[in-house]
Amino acid sequence: MTYRPVRLGVLGLGRAFMLMLPTFRNDERVRLVAAAAPRAESRDAFVAEFGGRAYGTVEELAADPEIDAVYIATPHQMHADHVEAVAAGGKHILVDKPLAVTLDDADRMVAAADAAGVRLIVGPSHSFDPPVGLARQIIAAGDYGKVRMVQAFNYTDFLYRPRRPEELRTEEGGGVLFSQGVHQIDIVRLLCGGRARSVYAMTGAWDPERPTEGAYTAILDFEGGSFANLTYSGYAHFDSDIWMDDVSELGGCKDPASYGVARRALCDLDPEAEAQLKQTRTYGTGAEPPRPEANEHFGPIIISCDRADLRLMPGGVEVFGDETRSFIKSPLDPAPRKPVIDALVDAVHRDRAPVQTARWGRASLEVCHAILSSAARRKPVTLTRQTGIETEETQL
Amino acid sequence: MTYRPVRLGVLGLGRAFMLMLPTFRNDERVRLVAAAAPRAESRDAFVAEFGGRAYGTVEELAADPEIDAVYIATPHQMHADHVEAVAAGGKHILVDKPLAVTLDDADRMVAAADAAGVRLIVGPSHSFDPPVGLARQIIAAGDYGKVRMVQAFNYTDFLYRPRRPEELRTEEGGGVLFSQGVHQIDIVRLLCGGRARSVYAMTGAWDPERPTEGAYTAILDFEGGSFANLTYSGYAHFDSDIWMDDVSELGGCKDPASYGVARRALCDLDPEAEAQLKQTRTYGTGAEPPRPEANEHFGPIIISCDRADLRLMPGGVEVFGDETRSFIKSPLDPAPRKPVIDALVDAVHRDRAPVQTARWGRASLEVCHAILSSAARRKPVTLTRQTGIETEETQL
Repeated sequence: MTYRPVRLGVLGLGRAFMLMLPTFRNDERVRLVAAAAPRAESRDAFVAEFGGRAYGTVEELAADPEIDAVYIATPHQMHADHVEAVAAGGKHILVDKPLAVTLDDADRMVAAADAAGVRLIVGPSHSFDPPVGLARQIIAAGDYGKVRMVQAFNYTDFLYRPRRPEELRTEEGGGVLFSQGVHQIDIVRLLCGGRARSVYAMTGAWDPERPTEGAYTAILDFEGGSFANLTYSGYAHFDSDIWMDDVSELGGCKDPASYGVARRALCDLDPEAEAQLKQTRTYGTGAEPPRPEANEHFGPIIISCDRADLRLMPGGVEVFGDETRSFIKSPLDPAPRKPVIDALVDAVHRDRAPVQTARWGRASLEVCHAILSSAARRKPVTLTRQTGIETEETQL
Repeated sequence: MTYRPVRLGVLGLGRAFMLMLPTFRNDERVRLVAAAAPRAESRDAFVAEFGGRAYGTVEELAADPEIDAVYIATPHQMHADHVEAVAAGGKHILVDKPLAVTLDDADRMVAAADAAGVRLIVGPSHSFDPPVGLARQIIAAGDYGKVRMVQAFNYTDFLYRPRRPEELRTEEGGGVLFSQGVHQIDIVRLLCGGRARSVYAMTGAWDPERPTEGAYTAILDFEGGSFANLTYSGYAHFDSDIWMDDVSELGGCKDPASYGVARRALCDLDPEAEAQLKQTRTYGTGAEPPRPEANEHFGPIIISCDRADLRLMPGGVEVFGDETRSFIKSPLDPAPRKPVIDALVDAVHRDRAPVQTARWGRASLEVCHAILSSAARRKPVTLTRQTGIETEETQL
C-alpha cells in the first residue's frame, strides 16, 4: 500500500539536519515543505533547495496547516520547549536523540505528546541502523535462542570534533553520555528487550581542557536475565572503526592517512574559533553532507545468544553459529536512514508507534543519568522508568 | 652476567607441561633434571627426552638435592598441597596459574613459601607475554601519562575444549573464571598498578550440558583511579582472534576453515570419552606441543592513557598517539615464554621476587571469587587482599 508523501517541517537546519539530507533527498515517501531556523542563510538555502516555507520561529512552523510532522533537530536542551510547541500545533514529531538532557524535560515531552494525541519518534539514532534491525529479526526468528550478553564498544574522536562551549559542559548535555552513549544504550536496550534493571559504571574526564566525560564503561542488566557491557572512549586515540571494515560511523570509507585529523583541526583554536569551525559544517554554508558507502554503525557490537554470537557490521550481521560462520547482508539503501522514514510513515499514515517513542527515549536518558550517577556514587543504580518493546509497539 | 642453568624439577607432566615445552627446549638457562607424575608413560617419556630422575611422588621430587626449583603443573585444586611439599624441601617454586582455587589454599601457599624462605612465582600466565611487558615499559616511560581505562575481552572456545568432569564444576575450580579469567585479571592488574579496589560483575552459565560459568563481564577499579572492563566468553561462537591477526592464544596461525572444530570434536562423547580425549593431548602420548609463530596473547586489550591508547597485539604494541599511530615490535623469542624463565633465574640466582608472587596470585584469585560473588549478589564487592607492583618487587 502506498501513501501520499509525508509533509515534513524541519526545525533547526544545523549539523543534525545535514546528516539527514541523504535520506530526505532519496526517500520519496517524505517531502520537506517548511522549515524554521534562526539563521537567514540556512532558511534561504532550504527554500532554494526544497521550495516551501521558511519561518523564524517554532510557533509559526507548528501552526503551518500544510504539514503532517516536524523533525526537531535543535540542540538537546531546546528539545522540550520545541516538542511542546509542535505538539500544541497537533503535528507528529521526529525529535533527534537524545530526547532531552534532563528527566524533567523528558516527562514534559511524554506529557505533551500524550495530551496532543500525536506520535513522537526519537530519531534518528543508530538503533535505526539496518544491521541492528536485521539482528533483531534474526533474534526474533528464534533459531539461536535467547540473548544472553551484549558487548558494545566504540572508540572515536568525538571529544575533539569542533564544539560549542556548552557541548563540553555535562550539566548542559555535553560530553559523551548524552550525545554518544545514548546511541549505544538505545541499541543495547533494543537487543535485550528494553527494560534495564540496573546500571553500574565508571566514567572518565581526563582532558582538563575539555572537562566533561569523554569515556565510560558500564554494565547493564535486563529483565529476562541478559546483561551487557557498554564501553566508550571519545579521546581520539584507538579507532574501533578498524574493526568495522574501516567504515566510519556515518557510513563513509575512512582514509588511514587521516589519523589524528580531529585533534590537528582544533590545534590553537580558542572556544569562539572552534564554535565557528563547527558552524562551517552546517547547512547553507556550502558544506556537503556525507556520502555513505555503507550502512552507518556505532562501533563493534557482539550479541551472545544460546546458539550463536551475532556481530554487527556495516554490511550486515555475521553469525557465528555452533557449527558454521555466515554473513547475512544488509544492503545500503539510497536513503541510508530509511528505517527512520518507515517509522515516520507508520506514525503519520497508520497511527502506529515506533519502538523509539518518547517513553523509550526517556528510558534511554534515564540510563545516561544512571551511568553518571553510578560513577559518582560508586554504586549500582536501580532503574525505575524503563519500557519494553512489545508494550511500546501497541500503545500511543 | 651469566649463571649456570637453573636445575628444574617438574611436577605433573600433563597439558600445562606440554605448553611449556617450546620454552624449556629452547632456553639454555634452564635444565630439566627431574620429574614426578603418576603416569609411567609420561615419566618414561620425560627420562627419554631429558635424562634425569623420574619419581612417582611429590615428596621424592621435593627431596631431590640436585634441583633448584620445581615447576608445579598439576591440576589447580592440588597446588596447595604440592606447594607445601616442595617448599618443605627448600626448593623455589614456579606454580601454574591460578595459584589455587580457594583463598584458604592461597593463604597456605603464601605461608609455606614465607616459612621456607623460598621464592614462589605464579606462572606461566599471559601476564608474562612479551607485548604485555612492552606495554608496561611504554607506560613506565611516562610519555603518554597515566593509565586511565583498560578494555580487555576475549571470545574463545574454552568451554568446548575436552575436559575432565571437575573442570566443569565451579566449586572445584572449573569454568572460565579460574582458568581463563585469571589471565585477564593478571594482565589488567599489571597494567593498572595491581591494587584493585572493587569488582562488579555479571556471569553467564548458559549451557545446561556444561553447567559452569562460560562467560562474564566485570568492571574493576584501582587505587590511583584507573578502571577496567574485562569481558570473556568461552562459548565457541565469535572468535576475537580475528582481531589479533588470526593468531591463536598460543601463538599459532589459525586456519579460518577450522571454525567450529572444538564443538564438533565433542559431539556425542560421554564424560569418560571426553576425559580420554583430553588425555591424548598430554605429554608422552606422541602429541606434539604447539609451534608458536607469534607471541601468545589473551585477546584484544586496549589501554587508554592520557595521551595515547595502546593496543596489545601478538607482534607488539600499537600506539595510537595524539598525532600519530605507530607500532612497536615485540619479536618472538625461540623460547616463547622467556619472561617466565627470566623470573625463575632472578628467583634462583639473584634472590629477586617477580611481580607474580604468591601474594600477587592470591590477589588475582580474590578477583576471580569477587566476580562470582558480585554476580551472585548483584552488588559490588570490595577487595581486601590486593598487592601492588612496587612492593612485590622488593619483598620476599
